Amino acid sequence: MTKVDLNCDLGESFGNYQIGNDSSIIPLITSANVACGFHAGDPDVMAKTVKLAKAHQVGIGAHPGFNDLQGFGRRNLDMSPEEIYNMVIYQIGALKSFCDVENVPLNHVKPHGALYQMGARNPEIARVIAQAVYDVDPNIHFVGLSNSILIDEAKKVGLKTASEVFADRRYENDGQLVSRKKDGAVIEDTDEALKQVVRMVTEGKVTAITGEDVDISADTICVHGDGAHALEFVEQIRKKLSEVNIDIVKLGG
Amino acid sequence: MTKVDLNCDLGESFGNYQIGNDSSIIPLITSANVACGFHAGDPDVMAKTVKLAKAHQVGIGAHPGFNDLQGFGRRNLDMSPEEIYNMVIYQIGALKSFCDVENVPLNHVKPHGALYQMGARNPEIARVIAQAVYDVDPNIHFVGLSNSILIDEAKKVGLKTASEVFADRRYENDGQLVSRKKDGAVIEDTDEALKQVVRMVTEGKVTAITGEDVDISADTICVHGDGAHALEFVEQIRKKLSEVNIDIVKLGG
Amino acid sequence: MTKVDLNCDLGESFGNYQIGNDSSIIPLITSANVACGFHAGDPDVMAKTVKLAKAHQVGIGAHPGFNDLQGFGRRNLDMSPEEIYNMVIYQIGALKSFCDVENVPLNHVKPHGALYQMGARNPEIARVIAQAVYDVDPNIHFVGLSNSILIDEAKKVGLKTASEVFADRRYENDGQLVSRKKDGAVIEDTDEALKQVVRMVTEGKVTAITGEDVDISADTICVHGDGAHALEFVEQIRKKLSEVNIDIVKLGG
Amino acid sequence: MTKVDLNCDLGESFGNYQIGNDSSIIPLITSANVACGFHAGDPDVMAKTVKLAKAHQVGIGAHPGFNDLQGFGRRNLDMSPEEIYNMVIYQIGALKSFCDVENVPLNHVKPHGALYQMGARNPEIARVIAQAVYDVDPNIHFVGLSNSILIDEAKKVGLKTASEVFADRRYENDGQLVSRKKDGAVIEDTDEALKQVVRMVTEGKVTAITGEDVDISADTICVHGDGAHALEFVEQIRKKLSEVNIDIVKLGG
Repeated sequence: MTKVDLNCDLGESFGNYQIGNDSSIIPLITSANVACGFHAGDPDVMAKTVKLAKAHQVGIGAHPGFNDLQGFGRRNLDMSPEEIYNMVIYQIGALKSFCDVENVPLNHVKPHGALYQMGARNPEIARVIAQAVYDVDPNIHFVGLSNSILIDEAKKVGLKTASEVFADRRYENDGQLVSRKKDGAVIEDTDEALKQVVRMVTEGKVTAITGEDVDISADTICVHGDGAHALEFVEQIRKKLSEVNIDIVKLGG
Repeated sequence: MTKVDLNCDLGESFGNYQIGNDSSIIPLITSANVACGFHAGDPDVMAKTVKLAKAHQVGIGAHPGFNDLQGFGRRNLDMSPEEIYNMVIYQIGALKSFCDVENVPLNHVKPHGALYQMGARNPEIARVIAQAVYDVDPNIHFVGLSNSILIDEAKKVGLKTASEVFADRRYENDGQLVSRKKDGAVIEDTDEALKQVVRMVTEGKVTAITGEDVDISADTICVHGDGAHALEFVEQIRKKLSEVNIDIVKLGG
Repeated sequence: MTKVDLNCDLGESFGNYQIGNDSSIIPLITSANVACGFHAGDPDVMAKTVKLAKAHQVGIGAHPGFNDLQGFGRRNLDMSPEEIYNMVIYQIGALKSFCDVENVPLNHVKPHGALYQMGARNPEIARVIAQAVYDVDPNIHFVGLSNSILIDEAKKVGLKTASEVFADRRYENDGQLVSRKKDGAVIEDTDEALKQVVRMVTEGKVTAITGEDVDISADTICVHGDGAHALEFVEQIRKKLSEVNIDIVKLGG
Repeated sequence: MTKVDLNCDLGESFGNYQIGNDSSIIPLITSANVACGFHAGDPDVMAKTVKLAKAHQVGIGAHPGFNDLQGFGRRNLDMSPEEIYNMVIYQIGALKSFCDVENVPLNHVKPHGALYQMGARNPEIARVIAQAVYDVDPNIHFVGLSNSILIDEAKKVGLKTASEVFADRRYENDGQLVSRKKDGAVIEDTDEALKQVVRMVTEGKVTAITGEDVDISADTICVHGDGAHALEFVEQIRKKLSEVNIDIVKLGG
């Protein structure tokens, strides 16, 4: 039977600042990408988020990002590969420690924001991120953009990879995401988005914005929890996947 | 045969800023307390320090402190016990990750600066620090001030404790350190300091500033690496301990 | 004619994190205490908040706090008086710069959170905060807790002080706030709160929790903007003050 | 009589961390670029550095940089122009506050590290940095790389500019610095360096690495204070300038 994972960024609050809707989205997903205190999150938020994920039997992943809280890890920072390597080791360990306390495994790592984008385009950056994950624990699943350099390099390093797709984003005919700066980058029609998801998961194909069919791996679908519409959309994805007998299970599950 | 550990704070540099004399002191000690990026240290410094300690077969310990780089973790911060608990879990994990990469154990934890001082006096703070260590891994040795609440609470929690003494500090007749604000807090005479060390390790006694003998456990001696005199003093301690057949071995070794 | 100022903490968002309801409360107040990037706020939030306050002709004040974003400046940090002095100079200047750009004066300074509380109890801390304000610009109004050491020290330093009162908090018979840990600290009944405000402003008296009348200066009333009830309460205060012909004007206005 | 300024980065220590040799270099220079707490420096260091510069009658300048202490402001950070504008306003104000306390003017602004480099190449970034300076105070001198976009944009904005040259760096025939990645970027021979300085200041010409003469404005020479050789080199520059009757005076002096 075909299966897919639903992942969502969680634990992005910080101190007195609340972001997201963690307790509402958690029952709907199978993997949580937990911020590690650099671009978002703090030790208290991390502790709470790991407990929440454990209670819902959701796979827990580290979501390392640049040390740029003001920019929420979304601004490129020109760190050397070695600096990135060490930064990722640090953040994985910090989150893993809360997993150790709760006796749950650290199941995956997904780079965040600008680190994810830079890794998807730059082989050297992709390689050191993947190597950091591998060197901490080679059994951790690595989540990266489908058809990207992140996945290529993680495979070379020897990691179990999970190719990530987006339900409501259109793709170029080379398998890359259509840039948000272009018209048509986002699929507004829910039915079209749901059909795209199902086809990506079952056939490994997506219709590019130019009309051609493109190969795409879809091991995990990125969803969002902030906003009533976002939650509803995740529920629709779950319903649709269920109708076509696709199991929604955490990575490695 | 009697044995004792020599511990020193290491890895306190940060980015472009250099502190300490790590490569000179490392051959002389058996345990390194490595800063975890909150009061000092950064991921690059941590990676380098763990490699250095491994190369010299020195026991590696996490040295968690308050998130106060400007104050070097030496200023009291009024965090709640729960916040301290999570902060310690975070920092232990961050350092442990570099140990995992290098395939060496995280051997001990010693709280830093104001966290150490607050824990030595406040049972609730001592308890959450110790509980954090235990919950991450109950096999980690816990280093705290000899005769202090830190050691009491760590024992209650179930940790293997290592009572820390200072070669060149005088003690009150209740076993506490004479405050640095008082005259006579520091032993200026090297011979007197060396004799005090030997007696603490071999007899478990120290002569208080008031003249009485006081019980003291001495599992590990705190030494410093910055300054030519500091290095020389450590060499003298090593020589003296060797003369009286005390083994210098890492905690648990 | 009697007059009073209404002050509120503003500009407490940070990067991607939103806090407060600045655009709703701003038409109802006469003084804005703007966070300066240490316990809350960032340069972009400060720029926006100064523009907002200017557009509503609200007095702009710096709201310096401890450099503890995670704790929102509410946790005591054991800084030396000299460190506090320099920290306050820094934060006032940072905010004043946005005032210079907008060609509006920096009208007041009110310490935030733990810094405010520590200054209200500790003369040395109060003095260096006040001295920092004076040394940057002796014409800045200084806002502090009524009947507190903050006001005493600011007067000694030579600053124009504004004694701050709370509409919905009860007072001890020594003029201090009843601690929030005690029963009866907060006035739940709106009418009682409104009467207390009017009496403090017009008579300079408040009925202590023990029943006696206590002298209290009331130059500015602290109000809050977060929550529908908070806004409504401010509107009721404004209506009540207007009914008894108390002008609501910014400090020095 | 011809004149030139000698500028040096100062106040780059942070908390417990010491960098530089401020008290040794200060008698030899006429302008101090003072770090503002983002890439280096803290309020205590800023206070001390402003006092030191005042005592030596050295012109005081703000040296704003990216909020990246670990990278010392040397790593490009992809901030929006508006974010950079506000960040520069913030840092200028923070430093100006210490100048206000000491009753000395803020004489100049020189962007630091990656901000300087990005501004030298990107007109939009150069423009917002210059506009921030102008909007805080149009009388502040703006220091930027000679022949660069920084100077062009600062002139357009209406600022008094000071073109900065390097004694020991070679130039391309388009007036740009030879990249440090290329051979010959640095002039190793002291006499050659000294001759280059004199010619830049007196004739407004430099011999490019390709042999041609290139126009160059030389209002201020960048010098360094760390290292015995650095100090000696500054002394040699001073001696050489004196021999050819070039006055060494602060910007606007």
